[in-house]
This record gives sequence, structure tokens and C-alpha cells, in this order.
Amino acid sequence: MQKGNQQYCTTGTTFTYNSCDKQGQATQGGYSEKIVVDENYVLRIPDGLPLDAAAPLLCAGITLYSPLKHWQAGPGKKVAIIGLGGLGHMGVKIGHALGAEISVLSQSLKKEADGKRMGAHDYFATSDESTFTKLKNHFDLIINTVSSDLDWNKYLGLANIDGSMVLLGVPEKPVPMGAFPLISGRRSLAGSMIGGIAETQEMLDFCGLHNIPAEIETIPIQKVNEAYDRILKSDVRYRFVIDMASLK
Amino acid sequence: MQKGNQQYCTTGTTFTYNSCDKQGQATQGGYSEKIVVDENYVLRIPDGLPLDAAAPLLCAGITLYSPLKHWQAGPGKKVAIIGLGGLGHMGVKIGHALGAEISVLSQSLKKEADGKRMGAHDYFATSDESTFTKLKNHFDLIINTVSSDLDWNKYLGLANIDGSMVLLGVPEKPVPMGAFPLISGRRSLAGSMIGGIAETQEMLDFCGLHNIPAEIETIPIQKVNEAYDRILKSDVRYRFVIDMASLK
Repeated sequence: MQKGNQQYCTTGTTFTYNSCDKQGQATQGGYSEKIVVDENYVLRIPDGLPLDAAAPLLCAGITLYSPLKHWQAGPGKKVAIIGLGGLGHMGVKIGHALGAEISVLSQSLKKEADGKRMGAHDYFATSDESTFTKLKNHFDLIINTVSSDLDWNKYLGLANIDGSMVLLGVPEKPVPMGAFPLISGRRSLAGSMIGGIAETQEMLDFCGLHNIPAEIETIPIQKVNEAYDRILKSDVRYRFVIDMASLK
Repeated sequence: MQKGNQQYCTTGTTFTYNSCDKQGQATQGGYSEKIVVDENYVLRIPDGLPLDAAAPLLCAGITLYSPLKHWQAGPGKKVAIIGLGGLGHMGVKIGHALGAEISVLSQSLKKEADGKRMGAHDYFATSDESTFTKLKNHFDLIINTVSSDLDWNKYLGLANIDGSMVLLGVPEKPVPMGAFPLISGRRSLAGSMIGGIAETQEMLDFCGLHNIPAEIETIPIQKVNEAYDRILKSDVRYRFVIDMASLK
């Protein structure tokens, strides 16, 4: 709390859902018309941002903004975003607005036009082995938005001396990790989880100033199961947002 | 080279042994009466340090000094050194002289008196499971001098928010690594390899100023096989040094 890192609170964080509050009550999530919140945890959405396109900023937006700021993405920095999904597309937009040179590392080049429109300088297919030789020691920062099994050793080889790869998702199984990719270039493998409250407000203001909405598909709550099935097939560009007015 | 990190040179480093020079010749090591060296790679041993006790500083000393400085060990910082061997004992001495609060994490308490004499504030046995609950989130920096199989996930749990664990050795097999210990506290797993030339001179001067010799056992070269057998049994406190005068 003292440092504003509520998300790493060592006595336990109260999340909006899948969590317990300090009185031991299950938290009820945000899919409701009204919700009671401690005033220290209320955020202001900037006027310029549509409410629906601002909603995913409170998760995907801050999840990318926080590590990009913490690891100092900015002018002169080469940053890779692994995966162009709900998280990744916010990384491209925010990283580009911060002034960094953004590359997307995606399985295929299918979404290349999207990525470049969002601000990516380069776009590489990781299914192409030459990507890994071409980009050896290339990046100052690699943000991994992908929770599926990736060989972190291989991706760390794309980081420059003193470079970092930051994990945002948790793969189901442990990843076999060698020391060599770390030791041979003083590289770091790190992790980051959403962001603190003050930092989230800072991110919202930044996205308002730079006109950075999330790219969304708005659905009525009645279509939530259909949307869920599409998410499992990665068929969403780039976040579903539920219009809570449909609940009435 | 430009940043003084010769040890991470992306076009290849020339090491004193087990290496090739830029002309493709095998390097001959330092176990000789004389050796020809490029003047940019010659170091000065400070007057106050005995030559034999200074010798291991050029490997174990700089291997610890470099990460301690890079990760800013100093006053107010809690630093753990895993393993009290040839590397670890230099970490305790140098870290203490830098003003950090040093703890040794060793399998047993056998060398506790030695560790404390060298400057350790605390000494914990890792064979005692309570060490891992007692020291949860405790350290700003953990330096792992041990190359054998350790569960990095477990040790990372001892690092505080934004803490780092730095590997100095390469275990034979990959270590199964989860994302959670990293993500849940914005922790880093990193690696470091010896140090640059200017930094090595800085370390020698620092050790001269603070009177930090390595703890050694000096042997004639005729006893090198015996010494090697003792090293395999970890029976050395804390480095063997060969007196090259015995070669004549």
C-alpha cells in the first residue's frame, strides 16, 4: 500500500472477483448495475474515452502499462510484444504512445495489418525459425502476453545484454529453464501483475490524452456464452465488452 | 566493449583459458611463469593485498562484486548469499563492506562461525524447512552461487516485491520454473557472469581499501591433483591458490 503496489500486497489483495474481502466475504465481481467500492479504489474515466472501449483498460490496459513503465519503455528502446490478443494489442498501442519501437512476435502474420495500424514498427512470425536468428540480442524488453507453453529460453535469446523478458500470464505447467540465457547476457526473466490504483488512474489519463481505446466488440449479457466459446477459439478482436444496460 | 561489459561481448569474449583468441588460437591459461597480455587487460593489485590472497579476487571476487554493485547492494538492503564456498565467501565479505545486511543460506549451519566472522548478519540452514516460511518476502537480492540443482521457485519466494535472484552458476539440467513466483511480486530471475575490466580494477581497489583478501590455502603445483580431489568433496576453505614459484 505504502508504495502504491496494492496488487502485490503481502497481506493479501482484494480483487473484484475470484477473491475474498478483508471480512472474508467472497467478492461479487463487476457484472452488475451497481457496486459499492471503497472511495480509495474508484477511478475516473477521462471524458474523451467511450465507456465501453475504456472498460478493458482497467485490466488489459493496466496489465501492459505497468510493466512498460516499470521497465522504462520509451524513446530509443526496442520492445517486443509476444502475442497480439486482448493484452498484446494494448501493449502495442501504449508502448508506441510511450515512444518505444514496438515489434509484435506472433505465431503467424495474420494480424500484421492490425498490429501496424495500432503502432507496431515491425511484425514477426515466430513459426518462422529465422525470426530467432535474425532478432538475436535485439530487444531491450520483451513482454510475454501468452499463457500457453513457450520456450522462455529461446525468447530470452532475443533480449539484448541487460534485457528483460516479463511474463504476464501463468502457463499451466512449469517451463524448463536454463541458467545460460540469463547469465550470458545479464538478462532477467520477470513477471508483472496488473498495476496499482494510482498507476491505473495514470494509465487512464494517458490513454485519454493519447486517444487509446481498447478495440472491442460490445455484446448484450444474453450473448455471454456465445462470446465465451469464441474466446476459447481466439475469435475476438480484441476484447468483448458486456453492455450492462442489457441486464435490465 | 563500449559499456565496459567485455564479458558479455556479442562478438565473443576471449577468456584466459578454455577459450580462443581473435586469431583462433586456443588461449593457454594462467598457470605459467609469464603470460603476454594486451595492455588494456592488465590489472593492478593494490599494495595492501598479498598476491596469493588477491588471486581469487580476479574470478570469485569480481563474480560477486559485479552483481552486488549492479543490483545495488548497500545500506538498507537485505541480501542473501546462497552457498558459503569460494564464490559465496567473497559475496559475504564484499556485500558486508558495501553496507548491505548479508544473510547466508547454506545447507547446514556447519560454517556459521566462519560466515559471521566474514561479515554475515544472519546464517540460515536450508535443510530446515522453517527457513522458507520464516524468510518469506524477506530479501531485496538473492545471489545464488550454487550450481547444483536447487528449486529456484522456492528461493524466489524469499525475495521481496521487486526483488531479484541472480544466478552465477549453470546447473547441469534445466530447472522447472513457474511464472507465479515472478508475477506475484514483480520478482526477477537473472544471471551474471564475472565482470568487465574496469569493474575488476574497481573491485581490486575496493578490496584493497577495505582489506578484503580471499581466504585461501596455498599449494605447490605438485599437489594440484590432491587439491582437485578435495575440491570435489567441497573440502576447501575457501579457495586453493597455486604458488607458481613451485613450477621452477
